[in-house]
Amino acid sequence: MNKQLKKVLQSKRDQHLEELKAFLRIPSISALSEHKQDVQQAAEWLAQALKQAGLENVQVLPTQGHPVVYADWLHAEGKPTVLIYGHYDVQPVDPLDLWETPPFEPDIRDNKIYARGASDDKGQVFMHIKAVETLLHTEGRLPVNIKFCLEGEEEIGSPNLDAFVAEHQELLAADVLVVSDTPMLERGKPTVCYGLRGLCGLQIDVRGPKGDLHSGLFGGGVQNPIHALVSILDSMRNAQGQITVQGFYDKVRPLTEEEKEAYRALQFDEEQVRKELDVPQLFGEAGYSFLERTWARPTLEINGIYGGFQGEGIKTVLPSEAHAKITCRLVPEQDPDEIARLIQQHIERHTPPGVTVTTQLFDKGKPFLTPFDHPAIQAAGRALQQAYGVSPAFTRMGGSIPIVETFHSLLNLPAVLMGFGLPNENFHAPNEHFHLENFDQGLVALCYYWFELEKALDQQ
Amino acid sequence: MNKQLKKVLQSKRDQHLEELKAFLRIPSISALSEHKQDVQQAAEWLAQALKQAGLENVQVLPTQGHPVVYADWLHAEGKPTVLIYGHYDVQPVDPLDLWETPPFEPDIRDNKIYARGASDDKGQVFMHIKAVETLLHTEGRLPVNIKFCLEGEEEIGSPNLDAFVAEHQELLAADVLVVSDTPMLERGKPTVCYGLRGLCGLQIDVRGPKGDLHSGLFGGGVQNPIHALVSILDSMRNAQGQITVQGFYDKVRPLTEEEKEAYRALQFDEEQVRKELDVPQLFGEAGYSFLERTWARPTLEINGIYGGFQGEGIKTVLPSEAHAKITCRLVPEQDPDEIARLIQQHIERHTPPGVTVTTQLFDKGKPFLTPFDHPAIQAAGRALQQAYGVSPAFTRMGGSIPIVETFHSLLNLPAVLMGFGLPNENFHAPNEHFHLENFDQGLVALCYYWFELEKALDQQ
Repeated sequence: MNKQLKKVLQSKRDQHLEELKAFLRIPSISALSEHKQDVQQAAEWLAQALKQAGLENVQVLPTQGHPVVYADWLHAEGKPTVLIYGHYDVQPVDPLDLWETPPFEPDIRDNKIYARGASDDKGQVFMHIKAVETLLHTEGRLPVNIKFCLEGEEEIGSPNLDAFVAEHQELLAADVLVVSDTPMLERGKPTVCYGLRGLCGLQIDVRGPKGDLHSGLFGGGVQNPIHALVSILDSMRNAQGQITVQGFYDKVRPLTEEEKEAYRALQFDEEQVRKELDVPQLFGEAGYSFLERTWARPTLEINGIYGGFQGEGIKTVLPSEAHAKITCRLVPEQDPDEIARLIQQHIERHTPPGVTVTTQLFDKGKPFLTPFDHPAIQAAGRALQQAYGVSPAFTRMGGSIPIVETFHSLLNLPAVLMGFGLPNENFHAPNEHFHLENFDQGLVALCYYWFELEKALDQQ
Repeated sequence: MNKQLKKVLQSKRDQHLEELKAFLRIPSISALSEHKQDVQQAAEWLAQALKQAGLENVQVLPTQGHPVVYADWLHAEGKPTVLIYGHYDVQPVDPLDLWETPPFEPDIRDNKIYARGASDDKGQVFMHIKAVETLLHTEGRLPVNIKFCLEGEEEIGSPNLDAFVAEHQELLAADVLVVSDTPMLERGKPTVCYGLRGLCGLQIDVRGPKGDLHSGLFGGGVQNPIHALVSILDSMRNAQGQITVQGFYDKVRPLTEEEKEAYRALQFDEEQVRKELDVPQLFGEAGYSFLERTWARPTLEINGIYGGFQGEGIKTVLPSEAHAKITCRLVPEQDPDEIARLIQQHIERHTPPGVTVTTQLFDKGKPFLTPFDHPAIQAAGRALQQAYGVSPAFTRMGGSIPIVETFHSLLNLPAVLMGFGLPNENFHAPNEHFHLENFDQGLVALCYYWFELEKALDQQ
């Protein structure tokens, strides 16, 4: 099968990339209400692509927010069923002036495709569709049953997917969940991920005087909301990088010696990361390595802060308001609701006099961990090994895909996270891109995987 | 003279207000380069108004930045010469959506005129011109010689006025400086101010990773520039409202018992301020009253902060940069250059690992104090007493007019600060306005003052 498959994929490559560009041109930013129609359009584009691939029962299913696109191929009688999850919504694109080419005008340079969503996650969703299409066209069948569940709200915390999955348990029933939305450990190192961090976050709104004041006339006599905000935020972390919100670490499952050893064995090059990011040094919770900090330890990050004058030069204002957005990455067994509550209590205890503080909770996601030795995980490793010709890494990841926990708890699905992005491809930042070498090898790996998975689950 | 003067002012009131509106319509925002032509237009408008008032030698004099408008009337032979200083530039207007009527479309409601610059300082500059015009038209002469020096860069720290005054010492030579750019203590309480705080400030620019990062993939392993910035800022003030920058208070001249007693005698209503500002409580340096904190104690205020995502909802970004603008109000004998240096040293000592921090200095102003018993100060009190019919307050003020110190050091001029704005007129904020009762009574007081000043300086 190998040679023929690669030949077909090669012959279709130009056409595939043109189709991908069309998909990436749709500005499906889920966070911004003015892009609602674009998100809908991306869903309809997907439905059309799934039909063209030979999938059946294709539906654009409404939710309270953006729709879910469903499709299946269920003719592998007696064989396991795979549920493929992905998302077709993308992050906002500001600051726009830092993009070398416009975010929604895909551009191929140096064998990379540049566009918002190229890597996270439209590019990878597209690969899954093309893998199935290619197998159906070349083999006439798939070795396993496949269902697609593609959502449009991942970048805003999947507010409606829990309800959707709960209402469609029969439709979505499967033996394993496969997601391609996590990056490879590094270039040339295909990766299977067995754990994800969870997420919770909130916006802090500090209000002081009812209007902006002249800092000369009132400065020193009235609490400044920005001072109050920085005091609250600074109280949440100490100089050792530890989060000082009371109870924050109470439920954290410590790293086992086996996990620590496995991470050390990856011989991860921290100096390389430092150089790539161009920082004087890396920084994080004292006593942990970079991989431990970003895979297996919880964090609290300030994602945005704003208040007062931001223009050119000086304005001697004592502002009326100040705001910050913070998110935590959580690890087993931290509970997002409990952590959000602990942070709110911390804020109450650390609010300086003279201002009022309110919080707005963002959507949450639970942390998740799959057994390392699950056959679907090991089969993924074999597929990657064959496609890339190197041994894959088995990792945990720092990012959050809240719905993985949803699928686990509602449908009792083990999850295989097999992503093809690279860590420096600027997800969520200007100049997002995707290396086409992983588009090519990843497509091969995905085709192999369905055969490996059939064998692995048959042996159970 | 009194009755005739008031009658003339009354008869001209509508015309005066129409002229003032025309002046206020010019968006002379000195901080924003796109308004350069508007600032120039405001200077030319002033020159025309000064000529119309009967002043002579009217000139729009260029500087490296915005021009200075000069005019004089020097026919009171053997009499003292007054230099009137004011500024025709205004603050930026953001946030624009909080203005009830547009900032550059003056609107009179409830006997107040609403517009950017109505109170600070175009309205008061205009009053000085109309006072002189009225006296020249009714009396045919002025009791003292008068020179106008009106600048267009006060709101950006008067970067070119030092050089201008140094180069025009003969042109500007005088016996006393009169400035109307300070507010009255409260409504119905005309005020002569004998001291001003100085100013220094800087922008703090924190840079971390070379681009924005995904907080899931990198969060916990890379210093977050916003965390670093809030840590730096929070280290500058303690919970008692004291500034913790080493050496900050070293040169501060303590309040004398006489000054403390004089401030207590004003029976200032702090609860009224609290209510007007709508804050849960006032806050400032422990051990000082509101007046002491805002008149005679130095401050460090964060005027603006920004970094990361500011839009609607959540974006899980670990940003590349974060920024803050801070300014200090200084009291005798603090030196702005020294304080700026102390802050820079503090920042260097308190920069967390993993980021680089740079600072940009803003323009500075020295603090200033005039002897309370100077005859020009006391004459101002008498003029206000006659115009308003109540005893005036003699105060110090929290704001900065850096050029007062310039005129003092270069021209050896005592300064009389006799302003007609009210503290809640939203200078530097949306809905700036000016009470027309103080436009009317202030015009009378300014006319009286030149006679009182002639007598007072004659007796010396």
